[in-house]
Amino acid sequence: MAHIRLQDGLPGIVGPLAFSPDTAQPLRQLAEVLLRGPNTLTSAEREMIAAHVSYRNECDFCQLSHSAAAAAHLGGNYDLVESVKLTPEASEVSDKLKALLAIAGKVQKGGKQVTSEDVARARQGGASDKEIHDTVLIAAAFCMYNRYVDGLATWQPKEREAYREMGETMAHEGYVRPGQSISREVA
Amino acid sequence: MAHIRLQDGLPGIVGPLAFSPDTAQPLRQLAEVLLRGPNTLTSAEREMIAAHVSYRNECDFCQLSHSAAAAAHLGGNYDLVESVKLTPEASEVSDKLKALLAIAGKVQKGGKQVTSEDVARARQGGASDKEIHDTVLIAAAFCMYNRYVDGLATWQPKEREAYREMGETMAHEGYVRPGQSISREVA
Repeated sequence: MAHIRLQDGLPGIVGPLAFSPDTAQPLRQLAEVLLRGPNTLTSAEREMIAAHVSYRNECDFCQLSHSAAAAAHLGGNYDLVESVKLTPEASEVSDKLKALLAIAGKVQKGGKQVTSEDVARARQGGASDKEIHDTVLIAAAFCMYNRYVDGLATWQPKEREAYREMGETMAHEGYVRPGQSISREVA
Repeated sequence: MAHIRLQDGLPGIVGPLAFSPDTAQPLRQLAEVLLRGPNTLTSAEREMIAAHVSYRNECDFCQLSHSAAAAAHLGGNYDLVESVKLTPEASEVSDKLKALLAIAGKVQKGGKQVTSEDVARARQGGASDKEIHDTVLIAAAFCMYNRYVDGLATWQPKEREAYREMGETMAHEGYVRPGQSISREVA
């Protein structure tokens, strides 16, 4: 049972987002920009960074849903997603993405863990300043989302099929609900 | 030197926020709602939760600036802020706030660390579901902001006076800059 009274049947982060619309808006917008906004990193790459950090934080809901979103962007290639999530250095991805995943893994432990050598390796692999920035922020943001989901002990589906469907929606419809305006003034 | 090229002279998080306006907008809005939005927790209480988590994450910039913001809300009472930040259980605050700080400290370590007993203690002290929710999200959000600031090795002022001024601005003008619209559609 969740630590606070949340609407029944809403999986993972969706419960607290519905509970608190004022904070849901920037939380959804941040995910939308980070994972689906215009970027030289593909959405699949960014979702795999999110899944890797969530796996390291032992957040089942986030790692399963973002793995499914990454797989949805990759035509269902769960094997690649699993290998990137569990053993990034041994996976079949670019040297650039491996170096960015290493930075994300350091950020998961703490910001000060990232070294100049980690960053030099990413640049060597061809990463731009923006790609390094976005990797650090995606990793940092999932240290938030993961704690939000588990710190409230939210309800989480057990069946893999539920995550496959969520992943399709996250990949193709995004994090800001259709018809839901996120426009708002805070003056 | 920061890990990526940031505008000179911008302290801490302000550098990466200027580097990446698309993500700055939801990051600023989230801080505004969490720390200054309408709430039964005072802004001073919420800033002290932020400072305590930032202290635990060893993020100097965030702990000094949010301590200063809390003190600005408290008419300059830095003694109270320091004691809440360093030794919350021994500080001169309500049982409710002590219990919420204990939850925040658990979230800093990881979402799954929060127990039913932690939450029961907060309720015993009079905390509402919304106050528990907001505490978890403030703590989670600062696990993000702290990692964003330190994961990019941002430049940070050394002088306490700089933080005092920042704290006044954060407390009284807020996190969304005057004249800066955060309205935007992500459809």
